[in-house]
Amino acid sequence: MGGSTFGERFAVTTFGESHGGALGVVIDGCPARIELSEADVQADLDRRRPGQSRLVTQRDEADRVSIHSGVFEGLTLGTPIGMTVANTDARPGAYADMVDLYRPSHADYTTEAKYGIRSWQGGGRASARETVGRVAAGAVARKMLAAAGAEVLGWVSAVRDIVAEVDPAEVTREAVEAHPTRCPDPAAAARIAEAIEAVRRDGDSVGGVVTCVSRGVPPGLGEPVFDKLDAELARAVMSLPAAKGIEIGSGFAGTLMTGRTHNDEFAPGPHGRPVVLTNRSGGIQGGISNGADIVLRVAFKPTATIASQQRTVTRQGEPTVLAARGRHDPCVLPRAVPMVEAMVCLVLADHLLRQQTTQLAPGSSPRA
Amino acid sequence: MGGSTFGERFAVTTFGESHGGALGVVIDGCPARIELSEADVQADLDRRRPGQSRLVTQRDEADRVSIHSGVFEGLTLGTPIGMTVANTDARPGAYADMVDLYRPSHADYTTEAKYGIRSWQGGGRASARETVGRVAAGAVARKMLAAAGAEVLGWVSAVRDIVAEVDPAEVTREAVEAHPTRCPDPAAAARIAEAIEAVRRDGDSVGGVVTCVSRGVPPGLGEPVFDKLDAELARAVMSLPAAKGIEIGSGFAGTLMTGRTHNDEFAPGPHGRPVVLTNRSGGIQGGISNGADIVLRVAFKPTATIASQQRTVTRQGEPTVLAARGRHDPCVLPRAVPMVEAMVCLVLADHLLRQQTTQLAPGSSPRA
Amino acid sequence: MGGSTFGERFAVTTFGESHGGALGVVIDGCPARIELSEADVQADLDRRRPGQSRLVTQRDEADRVSIHSGVFEGLTLGTPIGMTVANTDARPGAYADMVDLYRPSHADYTTEAKYGIRSWQGGGRASARETVGRVAAGAVARKMLAAAGAEVLGWVSAVRDIVAEVDPAEVTREAVEAHPTRCPDPAAAARIAEAIEAVRRDGDSVGGVVTCVSRGVPPGLGEPVFDKLDAELARAVMSLPAAKGIEIGSGFAGTLMTGRTHNDEFAPGPHGRPVVLTNRSGGIQGGISNGADIVLRVAFKPTATIASQQRTVTRQGEPTVLAARGRHDPCVLPRAVPMVEAMVCLVLADHLLRQQTTQLAPGSSPRA
Amino acid sequence: MGGSTFGERFAVTTFGESHGGALGVVIDGCPARIELSEADVQADLDRRRPGQSRLVTQRDEADRVSIHSGVFEGLTLGTPIGMTVANTDARPGAYADMVDLYRPSHADYTTEAKYGIRSWQGGGRASARETVGRVAAGAVARKMLAAAGAEVLGWVSAVRDIVAEVDPAEVTREAVEAHPTRCPDPAAAARIAEAIEAVRRDGDSVGGVVTCVSRGVPPGLGEPVFDKLDAELARAVMSLPAAKGIEIGSGFAGTLMTGRTHNDEFAPGPHGRPVVLTNRSGGIQGGISNGADIVLRVAFKPTATIASQQRTVTRQGEPTVLAARGRHDPCVLPRAVPMVEAMVCLVLADHLLRQQTTQLAPGSSPRA
Repeated sequence: MGGSTFGERFAVTTFGESHGGALGVVIDGCPARIELSEADVQADLDRRRPGQSRLVTQRDEADRVSIHSGVFEGLTLGTPIGMTVANTDARPGAYADMVDLYRPSHADYTTEAKYGIRSWQGGGRASARETVGRVAAGAVARKMLAAAGAEVLGWVSAVRDIVAEVDPAEVTREAVEAHPTRCPDPAAAARIAEAIEAVRRDGDSVGGVVTCVSRGVPPGLGEPVFDKLDAELARAVMSLPAAKGIEIGSGFAGTLMTGRTHNDEFAPGPHGRPVVLTNRSGGIQGGISNGADIVLRVAFKPTATIASQQRTVTRQGEPTVLAARGRHDPCVLPRAVPMVEAMVCLVLADHLLRQQTTQLAPGSSPRA
Repeated sequence: MGGSTFGERFAVTTFGESHGGALGVVIDGCPARIELSEADVQADLDRRRPGQSRLVTQRDEADRVSIHSGVFEGLTLGTPIGMTVANTDARPGAYADMVDLYRPSHADYTTEAKYGIRSWQGGGRASARETVGRVAAGAVARKMLAAAGAEVLGWVSAVRDIVAEVDPAEVTREAVEAHPTRCPDPAAAARIAEAIEAVRRDGDSVGGVVTCVSRGVPPGLGEPVFDKLDAELARAVMSLPAAKGIEIGSGFAGTLMTGRTHNDEFAPGPHGRPVVLTNRSGGIQGGISNGADIVLRVAFKPTATIASQQRTVTRQGEPTVLAARGRHDPCVLPRAVPMVEAMVCLVLADHLLRQQTTQLAPGSSPRA
Repeated sequence: MGGSTFGERFAVTTFGESHGGALGVVIDGCPARIELSEADVQADLDRRRPGQSRLVTQRDEADRVSIHSGVFEGLTLGTPIGMTVANTDARPGAYADMVDLYRPSHADYTTEAKYGIRSWQGGGRASARETVGRVAAGAVARKMLAAAGAEVLGWVSAVRDIVAEVDPAEVTREAVEAHPTRCPDPAAAARIAEAIEAVRRDGDSVGGVVTCVSRGVPPGLGEPVFDKLDAELARAVMSLPAAKGIEIGSGFAGTLMTGRTHNDEFAPGPHGRPVVLTNRSGGIQGGISNGADIVLRVAFKPTATIASQQRTVTRQGEPTVLAARGRHDPCVLPRAVPMVEAMVCLVLADHLLRQQTTQLAPGSSPRA
Repeated sequence: MGGSTFGERFAVTTFGESHGGALGVVIDGCPARIELSEADVQADLDRRRPGQSRLVTQRDEADRVSIHSGVFEGLTLGTPIGMTVANTDARPGAYADMVDLYRPSHADYTTEAKYGIRSWQGGGRASARETVGRVAAGAVARKMLAAAGAEVLGWVSAVRDIVAEVDPAEVTREAVEAHPTRCPDPAAAARIAEAIEAVRRDGDSVGGVVTCVSRGVPPGLGEPVFDKLDAELARAVMSLPAAKGIEIGSGFAGTLMTGRTHNDEFAPGPHGRPVVLTNRSGGIQGGISNGADIVLRVAFKPTATIASQQRTVTRQGEPTVLAARGRHDPCVLPRAVPMVEAMVCLVLADHLLRQQTTQLAPGSSPRA
């Protein structure tokens, strides 16, 4: 494949370029009999949508989703769920200057090195617009996880050096959505909004960190070797545009501790299950969920599109300078939150199903 | 599958537990006509081997590899390469105390939650011993990459707060292998050795960071969406035991910069290809290699096995205390270096092959 | 996954039910720089389309395809090609009688046994209408194969006991398309048309055989073990609705011969390649193409939908009788031809790409 | 991958050449807590073993299996099961004549066309000896199927024009194993034994048909589109050496019937499930099992290795003649029976697990 499919049992395939006719996604393997409507999907797309606030790109896309298959009378059929979203405010002409040159820290050069051809209309397949399909699929995964008692919640925990002071165990969706920055610490949110406004005016950009917690995940998800749950989550979020790092639990800070202080001791918990007294493992031990909150942090670099003049080269190998135009986000963080959540939902949904094959189900026999 | 296969074209499947009869690996999809001998594989296994220095576990395993298939007269056949390594110094009896309790921050509880059964002899499938198969396969990938002009080099760049001061572009394998810590900064290496000795005497453990650079990787590797090269590398190294975080290029530090300072400008380079004037992207842009060095950093937590008393629970849900015995590494970092290299080699080899299908090869026609 | 994806490198994912909003397909892994237009795809869809002649179902669907992504200025980009076809003449009301009962030899009961839910509007996912996506994808594969010098041609070689007398090596597309039966033997074609008309009038149905030949396939395609080219072709065509058998080369008749008469001797051929003096192998030896024509035959059962009264049971387990209504094909063979061709094209395109990774491409090194 | 892995959840990877050091297999995804011992696996290997009677090749291989991992105290762990069988009676020298020429209807030429290299010692990877791994894995699948109430039974139903007269619903393993031909019709068995002896003396070979019935398979297995259960079975058995055709249920003979006589009417059955009054569907409708016996027939061509002189060409393109030597089966049918069974077991085990993800399992929530 060409790397546009994600997941083994809950398998998601996306298609679409930033300025093509439509973006879309197919989910193959969603279990039957999950309640699902277009409104469920639209809710997450609206959180990802451009133009939702002054802090993000002003490209005006309604991003209305159509579900073409796989749902019947409000329930999933178990068959593939095909969905599309039309591109309506594409302005390819705005990119005419870029036909023959490579924008720094974009995928222009690498795309051409890979394929020998490139759609110069916006970022093509490398555009963050591709995440429309991921977020739509993530909304379906979220419905399935809810049916299993799990929820996934992300927020902006830092922009540049402005850090939210919150307890991951206490953050609520209401607190996150209360501010267009999606930072649940009101004081930090205000400073972040100012910082984004400032770089926007300056033609510059900033990055930051998204934290994501998954609550109510049953123990046992993840495989012991290559498909460890943390490895799968790392791949998932690192596949988002502009992601440059990921930590689970104690992460890089954990390297400064010793085993004696880092280990999570066990105590007896409800239903006869052990519970951890601390959570430096971030909810995953040996690659498998232990029932505690799964906590991860994702680093996003500053947006590559800036208004400053930058040195670059043409397709013909000549040096030149570029000052990018076009609509873009001065900071991807607010819109990155639903993207990170979507990817985490996809991983958990997939592993929830995979876990259903770890033992033979009782009553498999027709003679029973 | 059960998550024991890695890679799409250069596909590696491992098997084996820490105290089973043998560990092994099958590589399916290695190209034909690559030079390969058991000595090539043994060289990397020897760097991973327990007992190689005082700093690592004293379990005494020769880890001699046997190649059973896929090689003929010194060349790969294109068919699966099956390899095994016998467990010879397994001492399952040492684990008899652990039949009925869960070691903190190990995979004991999560394994049982997943499968409803667990081999209590050491870590079972979750043991770092499983990486024997990965390192053997990585050695084959390394041979293939060398034929394509690429090399992968890792080293210990930090243990706890002791940080190596080296330029990633200048580190050599000789400098890395010159000290049993695998830290190429001699001053830091000496301090790291002392720190490891100190925690060993104290029955404690430490963690740290491995840095890995891949040189000579052709531009164009990686896919634009889910299978971005950085996402694949992240999954690969995060699947190693004890890994808690990964950064590519500027990583988390990059979130403190603005776009103007973070972007990598282009200049004309050799062969008509653009080259980056800085490398904050870490050799990957839009998920695709750009020909610059690929630089990543992996955080490893302190070893979970320590000699101190820790609170835990039994399988029956009763609280108890544990003081682990058995041979173990007070610090996994020196042995993690070949493991990280192996995983990076596997990703690059797989994507090098995948890239060969991105365009139709000339002369496909038998009528040509 | 849920089995809606086909192919490893040229990977096709379909979605859509017989009476849902739309049918579609995503191709991930099509090489870049292949010439492609909607007209190329439409040509094959028109051959599959209902209502194309009196011999097939009279459901009136234009089956106009839209390409949403992956093509730019007439060339493939290497990114996913998303395509949809709207359902416009769906008449779900015609199936209201079938909400609560299972049509004999259809997928009604088995679908409900599988998912615990079923769209009773037509065949749902099991409908032959699902093959719209396959044929659209097959048309893209056909373009790629043409660029490699290969062509795939199918025809109706038998309906019931009426057998076409043609030499597979000599059949042309013109001869096949000259008659609505898609039988290139004019005398047999006339008799087949009569037979189909007769069963239609009688409320009955008939089956038959499609033969398919692939010419110009380079030697070396197919893998030596599970993914033998003949195994892959068998799976491909047996996944078509109503297929009940497949033969390659000598097939079942070959079991009546001895090795001495069955073996295909070699003689020196052009370009220093051996050629077979006979072709009982059907172009594949040891699962790998040998450069000779690949010849296969597919058995299709009589259409399950008939107008006669048949015994069946309701969802509640009560016996009942059914006389199906709704528009249907009295014989699937004429429309099965483009379906078989599409599946064969998909297999060959996939293996053509897979073969490009069997050896390391020269010039992989950026230092070369 | 290189096509040496089979199955999506119950995934089997084989390795080994006919004259390499060892053959082996890894099963990834076998559920935990299935009873398994080496004796279980050996039983099926003994039925596949060369030298088991005068009717088969006289190569003397004990084919003793070693299980290296994945089993603990008589139960599967859910982790990969690695198994090997050593080659002990390899006589590569017997093939020295064949270094430079291509045996007719073998894989010699196609292997070299594919990889640019070939192990000339026997059939290499294309040898039927590769099926050791399949049969070992199939034995594990058989154990799992037995736990689910299903059994798989094959037999020789024809050699050349000698056809067994038996009712597939009544055949027993005892009747099959009562004669070295594995034909459960004693009269036909005797004639088949004579026919095989005759061609052996004559330096010739014969082919035939294996029939396989799967009983007790629950309804609901198989996916509605590409991974139809019949398609998967077709691929599975067509990947066996020398297979040239496959039929499910009515197969090619069904093309001679009309829908009215071909359709399987339903009647109320036990447990409220419908049962079919006939079984022309062969236990599969719309690609999904319906609970009836799954019946398939596989055509095997006459063994390609014969003692007669045949025309061929050398690697240098020169015409030559060949009279093969070496030990071989004059008829593969008796040994093909366990191979067919193994492949059918692998498909059913895989789809039994896949079916466990079609709906969300109750009690997935840790808060339940």
